[in-house]
This record gives sequence, C-alpha cells and structure tokens, in this order.
Amino acid sequence: MKTLLPIAVTMGDPTGIGPEISVKILSKYNLPIVLYGNLKILQNISKKLGLEFPENKVINTSLIADKEIDRLVFGQPTKLSGQISYSAIELAVNDCIRKKTQAVVTGPISKLALNLAGHKWPGHTELLSYLSNPIKPPNVRMTLLSDKLLIVLNSVHLPLKNVITELSTEKLLQTLAIANKWSSENKIIDPHFWMSALNPHAGESGMLGSEEDEIIKPAIRIARERNINISGPWPADTLFMKVKKLPKAFPPNNIIISLYHDQALIPFKLDGLDNGVNLTAGLPFLRTSVDHGTAFDIAGKGIASEVPLKNAILKTQELIFHNKTNG
Amino acid sequence: MKTLLPIAVTMGDPTGIGPEISVKILSKYNLPIVLYGNLKILQNISKKLGLEFPENKVINTSLIADKEIDRLVFGQPTKLSGQISYSAIELAVNDCIRKKTQAVVTGPISKLALNLAGHKWPGHTELLSYLSNPIKPPNVRMTLLSDKLLIVLNSVHLPLKNVITELSTEKLLQTLAIANKWSSENKIIDPHFWMSALNPHAGESGMLGSEEDEIIKPAIRIARERNINISGPWPADTLFMKVKKLPKAFPPNNIIISLYHDQALIPFKLDGLDNGVNLTAGLPFLRTSVDHGTAFDIAGKGIASEVPLKNAILKTQELIFHNKTNG
Repeated sequence: MKTLLPIAVTMGDPTGIGPEISVKILSKYNLPIVLYGNLKILQNISKKLGLEFPENKVINTSLIADKEIDRLVFGQPTKLSGQISYSAIELAVNDCIRKKTQAVVTGPISKLALNLAGHKWPGHTELLSYLSNPIKPPNVRMTLLSDKLLIVLNSVHLPLKNVITELSTEKLLQTLAIANKWSSENKIIDPHFWMSALNPHAGESGMLGSEEDEIIKPAIRIARERNINISGPWPADTLFMKVKKLPKAFPPNNIIISLYHDQALIPFKLDGLDNGVNLTAGLPFLRTSVDHGTAFDIAGKGIASEVPLKNAILKTQELIFHNKTNG
Repeated sequence: MKTLLPIAVTMGDPTGIGPEISVKILSKYNLPIVLYGNLKILQNISKKLGLEFPENKVINTSLIADKEIDRLVFGQPTKLSGQISYSAIELAVNDCIRKKTQAVVTGPISKLALNLAGHKWPGHTELLSYLSNPIKPPNVRMTLLSDKLLIVLNSVHLPLKNVITELSTEKLLQTLAIANKWSSENKIIDPHFWMSALNPHAGESGMLGSEEDEIIKPAIRIARERNINISGPWPADTLFMKVKKLPKAFPPNNIIISLYHDQALIPFKLDGLDNGVNLTAGLPFLRTSVDHGTAFDIAGKGIASEVPLKNAILKTQELIFHNKTNG
C-alpha cells in the first residue's frame, strides 16, 4: 500500500479568519495536511490565541518583512494581504498538479485584496482554473457537496438578470459534461442528473416562462443522446427536498444541476453550514473549500469556528478514500 | 365567553384529492369546521374508502344530477369539476364575509378546470380577492406560515424574467403595507421585516446586480420613514437559516419579505411540507390553504394524506385563538 500524499490547505486572506482557523486546525487535530501560508502571521495569531502548532506542517509561501506584516489589520484587506493569499494559492496549485499533494482545500480569500494586488478574478474558482492551466484554463463549475446533496451550478456570481439572458442549451450541455466527467473521475456509480427548472412550477407548460421548453428541454434531450442519465426540468421548490429523501450514497449519485447561485445555496445552507463543502468540478485536481467567507467582522477575535474547515478536510479525505478503494 | 364560529373548509376540485382528504378530515377528527362542497361526491368517496362522516357538517354548494357526477373521473379535471369547485369557494367566501364562519381554509383546485368553467384567474388567490370585493378587489399577497417562518411574497406566479422586470419600489412598498397590516390584524407584537435581496450576495455593492441599490434600498428607506421596522436587503442564501434560528414566537414576529416564488418556496418546503400553510394577506378575512396541489396522479386511490389539511385547519385555529386572546 502506497503512503498517502498530504492534502494542501491554503491559509486564505491574512486579515480574515483564515489564519485563525488554520492554526486551530493544525493545533487541535492530527490531520494529514500541509498548510500553505505565511508562517509569521500564523505564529502571531497562535501566540495571541495561546495555541501551539506544528510548524513543520507549514509551507511558508511568502517572505515578508515583519514590519510589513505588522501593518496588517484584521478586517482590513489590502494589496499586501492580497499578495500573501495569492502566493499561497499559486504554490498550492503548482504542487498539487506536480502530485506533491492529493487535493487543495482553500481558505477564505478577499476578492478586493486580490484585485488590489493585481489579480482581477471574479472569484477563487476562476483563479484556480487559470493557475491550473494559464494557456487554456479549463471550464469549471462550482459544486456543492454534503452528505445528502451534490449540486453542480450552471452559473454562480452573476446578476439574476444575466442568469436568464445567458442561459443557453450549449452552456447547460457544458455543465453536464463537466458534472458527468467529475462524477466518473470520482467513481460515482450510476449517476443520475436532476436538472432544475428556472421558472416557478417549471414554467407550467409555458404559462410561467418559456426557458424550460426552449432551452432546458433541448439540453436534456441532447444529453440523453449522449448517454447521460438525466431527468427534468424539475420545479425547483420541490426538487431539493425530493432528492434529499432518496437513498443515500457517498458521494451522492443523485446529482442536481442548478441554474443559479441562490437556487442552490438557499437549500444547501439551510441544510447546515458545517456539513457542506464547496468543490470545483473541471479542474485537473481535487479542490474543495469551506462554504463561508473571510468573516471580517469577527476576524482576529479568536471566536471563529474551525469546524467547517475541518469538515472540508474530512470530506476531501473521504472523497480520496472513496476514489482509492473504488479505483 | 362567545361561542366560536366554525372554520369553513372548501372541498377543492372533485377530480383531485380534495374530496378524499375532506372526508378523512370529517371522519377522523372532531374539528370545528363546516365543509363547503358537493355532498354526493363526498358520499361516493366515503363509501369507497369505507369511512363514515357527519353529513351535517357539509354545506352542499352545488346541486348536480347524479349521472353528471358519475361522469367525473379522478385525475381528469373538466368544466363540470371547475363549476363544482368554484361554487364551493364562492359560497364559502360570501358566508365568511357575512361572519357566518371565522376563516376559510381552501382545498386544492385545478386552474385548468376553473378556466374551462369560465373563471379565468391565474390562481386561487386572485379569485378570492375578486370574490371578496368584485368592484374593487383588494391587493393581496401570498404568505407562507410555519412554526419557524412567516414569509410574505412580493410576486408569485410570474416567469423569473418578469420578477426582475416588474420589480419596483412601489410594489415592494405595497407588499410591506399589506404585510404590516396583516401582522397588526393578527396581533403580532413588534414585527421585524427582513427584506430579501434579488441577486447573489445582495448584489455585492453593485458588482452582481443593481436592483438592490436602485429599487430595494429606496423601498426600505421609505418604509422606515413610515415607521415600519425593516432591515435588509439580506443575501437570500443565508436569510432563511438566519431567521429560522431566531427566538420563536407564534405567529413569528420576524417576517421575511421574499421577492419570488422559488426563493420562498425552496426553503419553506425543505423545512417540511406537513408543517406549512399558505395564507393570503390583504383579504378582508382570514384565509389559509394547504401547500399542495390536486395530486391528480394519486387522486381517488385512498392514499392521499389528510395531514397537511388538518395542519392548515389547526394553524388557522391557532391564529384565531392567538387573535382572540390578544385582541
């Protein structure tokens, strides 16, 4: 039996709760991880919290003068904080692609800080896609995973207006191809895709919207011709409760394709934040992340819970274990 | 102490599960109700199910020849079934307005059948508004009530596209006025209104949509000037879980204003169908309804659960009791 490679964890923005939850993870649990971040920042917060942590599990990704570090203020993201979080992500991705680690679990970043540091991406996901292949970034999709639900999103950070204007059969087929490939790579047996509708009551035969007939049903028809096991479009208001009640598997083989951010995130978060993780399907490596942000309002106070990060790491382990045993 | 007036229950479409759940309610529980519907249809189904029910609790709202009744087929709504369900609703509303009953709980209807019978309404709600005042139908809003959530919807049966194009400060203020009046009529102490956002992350300062800044925030500002206790716009993906965790009251005094059907119905249904009821705020009487439809696929088979209807009646009783004791 091979020795398992560690899981990479990135520290996130140093002015958010990332450093605090990283130190708590390192100090409280003996998880098979390496932490990509700034050692000095981690030392500072560990001292403040009175926690010791194994420094040999940290890969120091940015060498910054102490007086620069001292200028960082919790809750106030800057160009410097953006540089620090960027360098951790960059090295973690490179190492994972070169098989030094098995997966990357990302801590919460500040898009504003990344922007200030010259990295103008709409979010983590797009940045990871770029870093994984700068010449031809792969198409990726935000994916939500819990014990009961696996949801692949057709769109994420778009105004709701654009969700509708940009909805196309082609994009849905791309989402389905990514979802299908991810489920195959992750050894999901007999995946069934449940396509959500856009309009109330799935458009009620066109009376409450035409996108189901004009855009979504053609995508389902073509996907079936490509041997994808898919049903729908299902009215969104009952789809999540319906799928949640199906027999459980891990990872779930009943996979929801959701059309927009709130349609997926409302039921997913209502189901319990601690239990859920965020994945990026379509990357050439396994990436998960906590489903919360930098929480600037409580950063540096020692009260942020490391449980969501711990669960993201455990879910990642569980996925890796599932893949090895079914590979 | 006054004798309490009964609660009116309408039978719903005779080709759906309405008659079956009505008979189960009448036969199994001793609730203070009168049932508006067709006696012959109720007798037929009770015979089929082997259930006896107190016929003196039924107000026969349509006199139809037996051979006509025999033509009705479960799962197949017709002009006749629409006429029968309409006549029950019409008399129930009239009687409630004339204070013969305390409230109306409506069974599931078929819009198609009502249309065939010449009653062309987008839904139950609009029909009730018209019947309550044909000359000047009141503005009403669909409202969802459970033990944990009270949600007033700004729009219901609209294509998602129109949810956005028809969103206006004026309409939001009308929704708030209706919600505020309903909460006052129902003796809700210190109501707090939580306005939901439209776009992901509440538009993230305009980066993910402009409706929050241009339409929703002005409505909140004006509502505050009118002494309505309101906050928001809140990102929809965390709003429902946040409000659900607040200290409970019945009816809940933390009231969510939701912008569209699926935004409200996804979390509400995920929370448990049996527990939730549908209200219509803005009518001159208390109206609730079950949160399910005609269920044509199982109609007449004896397997439909009467529990949601029972719970709608119990929630209505609970509201009436709350109003009397706090009145």
